[in-house]
Amino acid sequence: MTYLIDGLQYANFSEKVFRQMREGGVDAVHVTVAYHETMPELIGNLCQWNRWFEQFSDLIVRATSAADVRAAKDSGRTAILFGLQTAHPIADDIGLIEILHQLGIRIMQLSYNNQSLLATGCYEDEDPGLTRFGKQAVAEMNRVGLVVDMSHSADRSTLEAIEASTRPITISHANPAWWHPAKRNKSDEVLSALTDAGGFLGFSVYPHHLKDGSACTLDSFCGMIAEAASRYGAQNLGIGTDLCQDQPDSIVEWMRVGRWSKVIDYGEGSASNAGFPPMPSWFEDNRHFGNIRDGLLAAGLAAGDVDGIMGNNWLRFFEESFGPAPAT
Amino acid sequence: MTYLIDGLQYANFSEKVFRQMREGGVDAVHVTVAYHETMPELIGNLCQWNRWFEQFSDLIVRATSAADVRAAKDSGRTAILFGLQTAHPIADDIGLIEILHQLGIRIMQLSYNNQSLLATGCYEDEDPGLTRFGKQAVAEMNRVGLVVDMSHSADRSTLEAIEASTRPITISHANPAWWHPAKRNKSDEVLSALTDAGGFLGFSVYPHHLKDGSACTLDSFCGMIAEAASRYGAQNLGIGTDLCQDQPDSIVEWMRVGRWSKVIDYGEGSASNAGFPPMPSWFEDNRHFGNIRDGLLAAGLAAGDVDGIMGNNWLRFFEESFGPAPAT
Repeated sequence: MTYLIDGLQYANFSEKVFRQMREGGVDAVHVTVAYHETMPELIGNLCQWNRWFEQFSDLIVRATSAADVRAAKDSGRTAILFGLQTAHPIADDIGLIEILHQLGIRIMQLSYNNQSLLATGCYEDEDPGLTRFGKQAVAEMNRVGLVVDMSHSADRSTLEAIEASTRPITISHANPAWWHPAKRNKSDEVLSALTDAGGFLGFSVYPHHLKDGSACTLDSFCGMIAEAASRYGAQNLGIGTDLCQDQPDSIVEWMRVGRWSKVIDYGEGSASNAGFPPMPSWFEDNRHFGNIRDGLLAAGLAAGDVDGIMGNNWLRFFEESFGPAPAT
Repeated sequence: MTYLIDGLQYANFSEKVFRQMREGGVDAVHVTVAYHETMPELIGNLCQWNRWFEQFSDLIVRATSAADVRAAKDSGRTAILFGLQTAHPIADDIGLIEILHQLGIRIMQLSYNNQSLLATGCYEDEDPGLTRFGKQAVAEMNRVGLVVDMSHSADRSTLEAIEASTRPITISHANPAWWHPAKRNKSDEVLSALTDAGGFLGFSVYPHHLKDGSACTLDSFCGMIAEAASRYGAQNLGIGTDLCQDQPDSIVEWMRVGRWSKVIDYGEGSASNAGFPPMPSWFEDNRHFGNIRDGLLAAGLAAGDVDGIMGNNWLRFFEESFGPAPAT
């Protein structure tokens, strides 16, 4: 059985997008349910997802485990797994980590571009590493089975999270800086440390993370993945598209600025390119995963490695990561 | 296998109380996790319970299903099931009903003494029945598997909830008014309608609900249960002690007054008897369920009926009530 799993999407979700997931044969998607939201706002977003699960019960189903993903595939539906891009909903309350898990959240970023109460984001000038609360939070996340995601974190914080975590962590959506040196892409040192510790990298298709941006070729993207597989091993690699399909540009502004700044921060963009960049022609929506699969085979990866990268590796990672830590 | 289950406690929970549950052989307890709390305050209470589950993992375990209760018994621990005595945490948001279920809440009262957004409480002068929101909420509770509890509701609202609900509801802690005509006890009409529809009654040991109060005899209490079994059938009856062990009197004031009144309301008490009344000598804590079992046998109930009332009936009710409604 081969699974097709996307490790990160924040589309403007709708019946159209859910139908495209089915058309594309997508078995599971990790979706972002909050950026800068407070806990009550997060709960409001979860209410919206519950409505969608009820309205579109023939297309999507809530999932909190690898077993749920398997059951979703068996029933011809796409499993939806929840994650947070910031730790904002827990504020400074370690008890809320288990509450998040009980609400079905399975992945949480410790910081998002900026300094958080837990760790440093990749746009800060200084990175003092995991905070006192951050270290406690990582241990608690390990205990309950909430995966640490460092996609938007700075290098030192990321290396310290890899070291502090007793369970493999993830960078769910980013690419190697040796291919495209964007601030959001990751150094070889970080990616080696991540994968050496069993951690998981999802390759992003978001144009700011791609060499040549929206003009990036499928060959270039898949060649990069083949090189990453030779450096880090294929077993801890997957796809995390960062698909933001159908979102208005106000959303990328919300992602970047939240409530923390009264002036615009362009993040990966610029004044002349402030909105969402156009996706590459070979990956515009959930129906295009076949292009990536074909590209990986054309790049010379073995069929088993391609199956792993397209989803089987994520499934194994979910299996090992989402339950409570084994008793010691 | 016979189970010992208590359908309602709001003790000042502590290691001492949890150890007494084990000493008493209590397999499961439905505990109140909120009265007048808002959603964030409820979540804070759930955090406290998570801490207790971690600290006292040899004594208690979180449970959300009959299967969890069985597993708890198999592991020599007491299963803790969560319920709310008011609908206050959902405010006027129907989406929060499923969120409550996802947080592990399995039972919710529609009103508590006063008028709520959903139904009328038993201390109001007027009872206009289920509100527009209340009717929608009952349907949603039926859908997700959150049990309607009318213990503190007024008669018309209760009868309308029984009628509106497509799944059996409960009065988890009250006694028949024909035995002791307290405002919180229930009319024969209500109890007949409840049990005719498969609904469940838990008998309370809270002194204000007992004939002769704290001086009530075990014979009188168990004779009342035997009479109820002959009127309503034994299969929908159980125990819901309403045990408030070790709570300071400030808590009964909170239960009664919450934030809705600046003047004291004595509820079932009085100015001269404002605090928690002393429990009857034959039921002071979780170690005393054996007295009730013995009393029921002495009252002439068949052994199988006694097993049912002491816990097996609640277990069956949990089994049928806590999952999503079967597809229609």
